[in-house]
Formats: sequence, C-alpha cells, structure tokens
Amino acid sequence: MQRYTTRDIWEMEDRQSPRMGCSVVLGVDGGASNTVCVCIPAAMPFADPLPVLARAVAGCSNQNSVGEDKARETLERVMAQALHKARRRRSNVSAVCLAVAGVNHPIDQHRMLDWLREIFPSHVKLFVENDAVAALASGTMGKLHGCVLIAGTGTIAYGFTSDGREARAAGAGPVLGDWGSGYGISAQALTAVVRAYDGRGPETLLTNNILDFLGLASPDELIGWTYEDQSWARIADILPVVVESAEAGDEVANKILHNSVGELASSVKAVVQRLALSGEDLFPLVMVGKVLEANQRWDIGKEVISCVTKTYPGAYPIHPEVEPAVGAALLAWNAIASELDGDLRAAA
Amino acid sequence: MQRYTTRDIWEMEDRQSPRMGCSVVLGVDGGASNTVCVCIPAAMPFADPLPVLARAVAGCSNQNSVGEDKARETLERVMAQALHKARRRRSNVSAVCLAVAGVNHPIDQHRMLDWLREIFPSHVKLFVENDAVAALASGTMGKLHGCVLIAGTGTIAYGFTSDGREARAAGAGPVLGDWGSGYGISAQALTAVVRAYDGRGPETLLTNNILDFLGLASPDELIGWTYEDQSWARIADILPVVVESAEAGDEVANKILHNSVGELASSVKAVVQRLALSGEDLFPLVMVGKVLEANQRWDIGKEVISCVTKTYPGAYPIHPEVEPAVGAALLAWNAIASELDGDLRAAA
Repeated sequence: MQRYTTRDIWEMEDRQSPRMGCSVVLGVDGGASNTVCVCIPAAMPFADPLPVLARAVAGCSNQNSVGEDKARETLERVMAQALHKARRRRSNVSAVCLAVAGVNHPIDQHRMLDWLREIFPSHVKLFVENDAVAALASGTMGKLHGCVLIAGTGTIAYGFTSDGREARAAGAGPVLGDWGSGYGISAQALTAVVRAYDGRGPETLLTNNILDFLGLASPDELIGWTYEDQSWARIADILPVVVESAEAGDEVANKILHNSVGELASSVKAVVQRLALSGEDLFPLVMVGKVLEANQRWDIGKEVISCVTKTYPGAYPIHPEVEPAVGAALLAWNAIASELDGDLRAAA
Repeated sequence: MQRYTTRDIWEMEDRQSPRMGCSVVLGVDGGASNTVCVCIPAAMPFADPLPVLARAVAGCSNQNSVGEDKARETLERVMAQALHKARRRRSNVSAVCLAVAGVNHPIDQHRMLDWLREIFPSHVKLFVENDAVAALASGTMGKLHGCVLIAGTGTIAYGFTSDGREARAAGAGPVLGDWGSGYGISAQALTAVVRAYDGRGPETLLTNNILDFLGLASPDELIGWTYEDQSWARIADILPVVVESAEAGDEVANKILHNSVGELASSVKAVVQRLALSGEDLFPLVMVGKVLEANQRWDIGKEVISCVTKTYPGAYPIHPEVEPAVGAALLAWNAIASELDGDLRAAA
C-alpha cells in the first residue's frame, strides 16, 4: 500500500515542550460522519466530571466510505492533534483504543492494529474495535457487558457477555436493509411520497411536509434531489419531518415509525438471544443516536425499550452521559487496569 | 455551462464521401448502463426485418449518474459514430429522437432540446423523451399508445393515451423504493441473507447460493462487498440466483419474487388508472427488461401480466422484437410522417 507522508503529522512533537511524567490514554470514535479523539489521564479517570485533557475532531474515517488511505490519514491526524492539545508526545501514551465504523471482520481489526503498531512506541497497548463497542463502553464506563443499540444515520446492535463473547446485528448499511436507521426511516418516507404521487399508495402529510422542508415544488423533483447527492446523512436529515408528521396523526408516517421500532427492537433481541444475555439477572441496554432521542410525543427509543423489555425484562436502559470517544478511552483504560491487576495478583 | 470540445467529434464528417440524396432518422436509447444509437432510412422503415443502416454503442448517458457534461458528450459521440458508419452527414438527417434515462421533467427536456438544436441543422426535427418512451415505441412500432413496463436494473411504468396524455409510475431509483426492479429484488435477497445470519430472519437457501455466486465465505463479508462498489447493476446481477433459489422451493426467495410481481403490477395499474386506458377496448402493455424475461419455471413477466389483466382485461402484452433505440427512431419517423400527412391534407 502506498502510504501518505506521516512526517508532517508528527513534526509538532519535536517543537513542543512536553509535560513529563503523566501518561495518557487515547480514545478514538470514528463514525459515519466524523471522527473524535479524546485524551484522558492514564491514572484515575473515574472522577466526575471526567478529566478529558484534550479533544480533537476530524472528518469521516470509515475506510469503506473514504478508502483505507484517507481513513488512516484522518485517524493519525486526529490523534496527533489531541496529543498536541494535551501537550503530550506518543511516548506519554499508555494505551490507544480506536473504535471505528467499517471494522466488521477480524481481518480489518488486524490490519488496523499492524498499522497502529507502526505509529506508536512498543510499550503502548493497542485496541481496535467497531465504533459500536465504544458506544457501549460510553454507557458502562468502559465495561464490555450488555448490549448497545445505535440508531443515527445508520444503525447497529452490538453486545458482549461478561466472559467476552460478542455478537452484532444490523449495521450492514442501506443496501442491506438497515430500515430502523435515520436513513431507513427517511428513505421509507420519501418512497411513500413518490407512491402517493404515482397513485400507488395512500395520500400522506409527508408529501407537503417533506417538500416544504426540502424547498421543492413537486414530488417529481424528488428524483433529481436524491440523485444530486446520495449521502446517507443528507437523506437521514429528513427524520424530524417524519416524526412531526406522525405526531400530527399521519397514518403513513406512524406506520413507518412503528416499523422502525420493530426493526430496532429485533436487532437488539437477536443479539440478546445469541449471547443469552437474558440468562444474567440484569444487563445494560445502552441507547445511542438521534433516532433514539426523545421527541415531543413520538419517542422511538422509549418504544424500542418497551418492546425489548417485554421479552427480556432484565434489560436496563442507559442513555450515556459521555460521548463514544470517551467510551473508547475508558475501554483502553479498563483493559490496562485489569492487566495491571492481573500482574499484581500474579506477583502476589 | 462549460462545453466539451465538439470539433473532434464531427471532424469525420469532412473526411467522408457522403451518400447523397437519402435522408435518415436517428434513434437513441440512453439507459442506465449504456447508450445505443441506430440510423434508419427516413423513407419506408416498415420493411421486415427493419433496415437498420448503422448501430453504435457507448457508455451511460444518464445525466443524473454521470453529470450533464459527460452525458452530452457520450450522446453526441454515439450519434456521430452511427452517422459515420452509415456514411451520412448531419445534413442528411430528417429527425432525431433522443430517449434518455434521467429526463424526468419538462425542464430537462427543454434543456436537452436546446442543446440538440446547436448540433443539428435547423431543418432537422428533434424529439427528447424519457428512455421508457422508446421502449414503448419498440413494441408499438413507434405509436405512442398504451403502457410500457421496464424492469431491468431499475424499473418504470410509462403510458400514453391516443390523444397524447401521458403518465408514469416508479422509475425513481433505489432510494425511492423501486422494489420490483432487478436491483430491488437483489437488495431484498441480500438483506434476507444478513437477517438470517443475524438471527433476525428465517434461514434461506439464498445464503449459500448468493455466497457461492459471489465467491464469499461468510455473510459478514457481504458488508464489505456491497461497500466496495455500490453500482446498481452489480447488485442487480444477483437476480438469477434469487430466481433459482425460488425455483428450488425457498420460501424467502419466493416471497421476494411475489412481492416484486405485486410492485411491478401496481406500477402498471397506477398508470392505466390515471390515463383511464381501460376505457379503450384494448391497449398494448409492452414488457421490456431482463426481470420480465421468462426463466425456467418462475416467470415474473407472466405473473405481472396475469395480475394486471385480472383488473384490466383490455391489456394485451407485447414483447418487442426490436430494441428501444429502434423504437426511438420509429417514434421520430412516425412524428415526421404524421406531420407530412397533415401538410398533405392541408394542401389538398
């Protein structure tokens, strides 16, 4: 693979006067639309509020969307920026957890680890996970246990048992039917407008509401509008209009939202069943993403929880107070802490 | 708009020795994957077989996919090539019918006509239509009457009354729910594989059959496969595997195909109803595209016809024997013939 030039990314290290003796942990959350890196102290991160030393933001680092080379450059830059802001060097880092969308296979994970190994000194502990894992950790303070449901532009359900088994459902993108996501809900709403216009489906408030929202005069302009730029996030932005139409009593919009609740709940249930999480007394169900945030009356997240707990009463919902990048950092912190713990026990 | 250089496209005109005195008609069919231009004599095109003087093929000319500039260049080149092969110049042309995907609005049509006007001498009659119109004409020998259903990679239903009213349904692309298309059927099949793998849907033969077809080892490799290249035609290529799985008795595959039949029939019915075509005794229902071709046992086209004729017994199905580009040429020929006819009657 042809590498981009990394020299300029890290040259700042030579110019800064480092704070000595205080090592840090990096957590990176690379999602569909942007990448966040946070830097926390390696010692005692459980203060409230969490002592985030620095935070840096960059664009998309999903290698499936932007290509491997571009994704890696974005990730490397955002880590360098966070360290620079925290006035640390790579030698100050104890551990890095990279939680990125598009890591769907052990092969992806290993390639990413090999690449990280080239960047950091050999003492640094490295972890690579799917971005869903960081979202779970953001609700469980770094503990990998329970199930997370993410529903933003895309959607995925991801779970872990206490003994380290993991499972996922959905998260396969729009082509492969993630209908519960913001994109999925919006695409269904746009489809309903076209169908009503064609005479293939019932009339719906969605027609006027969506056309108003997009500033279009007629449903036949929707075709050009979708072709213009097929980014999922742009389509997912229609979500509030769908919720608003459902709240105004529109049957078509209500049907789409109920369908989305069913889809999202079925992803969670598939993970819980495969991991037999219900066998444990209680397990966290971490809810992340704008689709799951409460609206005025239509609360998709609440409906999903109600649907899941009917089958699995042991699920206790958590709405995280920290962002997924902090979850990633806590994950790395937890891993080195438990290793240290193991070492101490082995030495005793 | 910044124009590409057309000089090199037409320079061949100066070099060739033209056949004099015999004028021609150009028909262009610009679909999702390629563009075909045929050149037929302006006099007596109704011989059997049709006297196609020349045929040229180029890439995609859907401006929504490749951009306006690229689309125009492709169209201009393919017309120049067909004329060159037929040893004619632009001055030999009586009429041109450009039937191109992506012309969804009178504005698109007018822009395209203005552009054509710059290329051809002022005596040339010009027509711009959606590519579905050429497909209809390919079944009706150039007469705009009845309904055409196209189902290849995409799908659209398009109809005309004898007195010139027109209507369409579907043809809005994958985001806007063309589920009856080759892409739609294949995407549903891929989704079913992911759901079965996640534990969110029933087991299906589609899993092994599709993985074998694509040379993949596990359903989780499907995510990477779809991200790699999201062209609709690549996904639509899975269609034969879905049909084969349905023929082998797989319930999931059968459900997808039945659903596709319902979708396609509903597009036709929406057009027939809006145009009140059923009020006329009989009307052509032209069936075009690989989804509608007969397979071994599962014949989607036949099922669609049976579904439509139950509601509208006046529909008589036609499977065209000439390609849509010839339909476009016949359309142009028909238009100038009826104009000539009008002139003769006016002079009498």
